[in-house]
Amino acid sequence: MSRGKFIAFEGGEGMGKSTQARLLQSSLAERGIEAVLTREPGGTPGAEAIREMLLHPPGEGWGAEAEALLFAAARADHVHRLIGPSLGAGKWVICDRFVDSSRAYQGYAGELGDEKVRALHEIGSRGLLPDLTIVIGADSEEVGKRLRARDGDNSDAIGGRDEEYHTSVNAAFDAFAQAEPVRFARVEGTGSVEEVQARVMTAVSALIGSTGQ
Amino acid sequence: MSRGKFIAFEGGEGMGKSTQARLLQSSLAERGIEAVLTREPGGTPGAEAIREMLLHPPGEGWGAEAEALLFAAARADHVHRLIGPSLGAGKWVICDRFVDSSRAYQGYAGELGDEKVRALHEIGSRGLLPDLTIVIGADSEEVGKRLRARDGDNSDAIGGRDEEYHTSVNAAFDAFAQAEPVRFARVEGTGSVEEVQARVMTAVSALIGSTGQ
Repeated sequence: MSRGKFIAFEGGEGMGKSTQARLLQSSLAERGIEAVLTREPGGTPGAEAIREMLLHPPGEGWGAEAEALLFAAARADHVHRLIGPSLGAGKWVICDRFVDSSRAYQGYAGELGDEKVRALHEIGSRGLLPDLTIVIGADSEEVGKRLRARDGDNSDAIGGRDEEYHTSVNAAFDAFAQAEPVRFARVEGTGSVEEVQARVMTAVSALIGSTGQ
Repeated sequence: MSRGKFIAFEGGEGMGKSTQARLLQSSLAERGIEAVLTREPGGTPGAEAIREMLLHPPGEGWGAEAEALLFAAARADHVHRLIGPSLGAGKWVICDRFVDSSRAYQGYAGELGDEKVRALHEIGSRGLLPDLTIVIGADSEEVGKRLRARDGDNSDAIGGRDEEYHTSVNAAFDAFAQAEPVRFARVEGTGSVEEVQARVMTAVSALIGSTGQ
């Protein structure tokens, strides 16, 4: 059995990643491709417990280093217990956020830097990267509008950070997509859900073609 | 104000580290030296929450990588919130276990290797090392006796590992002490609590002399 494909959705808050991840799973199912839909931080009992600690810290809040280590620990459990075995069993995996979120949030918008985030991913998850990472982006005006629209929902320790932080996160994702045009596909997030989905399917089509399924 | 001294106690299960750490705090207090007594994993609200997850994993148990990342996250919080500020305020810090426990348990007895454990400590805690690390050790016969005597108490995910694992942990600590005779003092753990304490005070005397207190 051939190994499954691994697709991650990335982008800032409110860009529609979760919706598009779900729609992609359905579209793949219509083509006879079974895909596991999961998310980060989380996806396994251990990683979900770490997620809770990250979003609602028990003490005075995590420093940049502890936060990055906790994300890497959750990801290590997720890769070890769910993503790796699923791919090995020939299933596709669609993940709402993966290591590039750590790079954008802790590495760029935070204080840690990209090199340390990548080193943690090497140690924790042997540096596993998705076959394709879809960045859903928009111009800075649209990003600001979506952030403000979510203000009421985002009281957790990360979503609740200031607009400057989140603008910087969106800029980091765009920079990643420009730097590695093969591993990333940047999809414009403006327009209707169906319009964005059509762009996602265009980005994914090469992977579907290559499986022979 | 001069920076405080940082002393860690290390060794396998049942070697009397906690008792000796407490006695050292009292002896220093009699000499007018205020010392913060703390332990790992734990020591801060965030790190204690991680301790609970390490000793009682929510899922099927942590893999070697996730476990090492969680220990490093707990240590980063501990150093950032308690150990660093205490030393900076001129207090001494006595810690029951520190990074050499991660090296012995996850690095040597586990599967991770020393290099990765050290890399995590660099990222999480800027590689902070104690001024003195006291390893309480004993020969393998005595180690086995103490492990068996503790069997009833050690049902957690780490203390409850098999005797071979714990023998390997003790051997690792002895090897560390031999490899770095300045940073480590190896103290014989056999004999009465008072006899061991006298050996500890001999090991610490050079630090006390150097403070001018």
